[in-house]
Amino acid sequence: MKRLLYPMRTYLVVSGRIGEEVDVMAADWVTMVSADPFIIAVAISPKRYTHKLITKYKEFVLSVPTVKILEDVWVFGSRSGPGKLSEARITFEKPKAVNVPLIREAVANLEFRVIGMHDYGDHTLFIGEVVAYSFDERVFPGDEPKPGSGFVLHIARDKFTVEQTSVFKPSLKT
Amino acid sequence: MKRLLYPMRTYLVVSGRIGEEVDVMAADWVTMVSADPFIIAVAISPKRYTHKLITKYKEFVLSVPTVKILEDVWVFGSRSGPGKLSEARITFEKPKAVNVPLIREAVANLEFRVIGMHDYGDHTLFIGEVVAYSFDERVFPGDEPKPGSGFVLHIARDKFTVEQTSVFKPSLKT
Repeated sequence: MKRLLYPMRTYLVVSGRIGEEVDVMAADWVTMVSADPFIIAVAISPKRYTHKLITKYKEFVLSVPTVKILEDVWVFGSRSGPGKLSEARITFEKPKAVNVPLIREAVANLEFRVIGMHDYGDHTLFIGEVVAYSFDERVFPGDEPKPGSGFVLHIARDKFTVEQTSVFKPSLKT
Repeated sequence: MKRLLYPMRTYLVVSGRIGEEVDVMAADWVTMVSADPFIIAVAISPKRYTHKLITKYKEFVLSVPTVKILEDVWVFGSRSGPGKLSEARITFEKPKAVNVPLIREAVANLEFRVIGMHDYGDHTLFIGEVVAYSFDERVFPGDEPKPGSGFVLHIARDKFTVEQTSVFKPSLKT
């Protein structure tokens, strides 16, 4: 695979239904699509259990990990199927608007309803509209991310890095 | 706007047709969609000139900037219309497969044909399939990005950061 768009941020996708079946996977292929309404897209392989769960329940949660839970991110990225949940150390929390659990150790949890699905190549692009969210005010003071928080950047395979604490500002005036 | 998915990588989207009209804009809302075939998605506002050009010519180039050309990234992100080209210091290069120019100062240039367009909220998601690419082997040795290269991460407005040079590896075996 060509990694010319990498390093890319790694997020966690939680799917399923509380009390029935739940899975978590690591996903790099995530982007915003619209600011207002708040819509995102995430590409998921039909081979993944998460694909079946999102297709079935039409809801998912996107959780934002930091490097503090890198071991769990790796479990969720490298293992397949719901069995991996027993290997992870994260804990679940009650959602506000969907029936998919949040991840307590994540610095933000966004709850989505699926509003579109598009198959392209070897993945399906799931389009989700935000129905609720919660976040750690210390990591997102004033609604923007604080550099130095240890956001997970995926380089390749088991190699990750994080962002620098320094802020660069262009000198040109807008 | 909620910046809970930020910091996000910033890329440059080149559109138009060589010898006719060309524009460049900075875009954070970019993701991979499929590995094989290599397909990406980029969300662009219908207000942008780039939107008109991609809709018209059905081709675009995605260029990967580093912090070395942050001033230009900022020009392309904060100014509107093709007039901004005169403010930028980047130079264009001949593409391999499309009729849109590449950016010589970028560390990678990927050439795309549009294979899908989906309107969601305040943006259009353009789906592009790679038809050619070129990259700097020093920045992508062995087809993976070298941390410490200064990939541009957008925090908010005129605040940017870059990735650390250090590599983190989870200790769990796969």
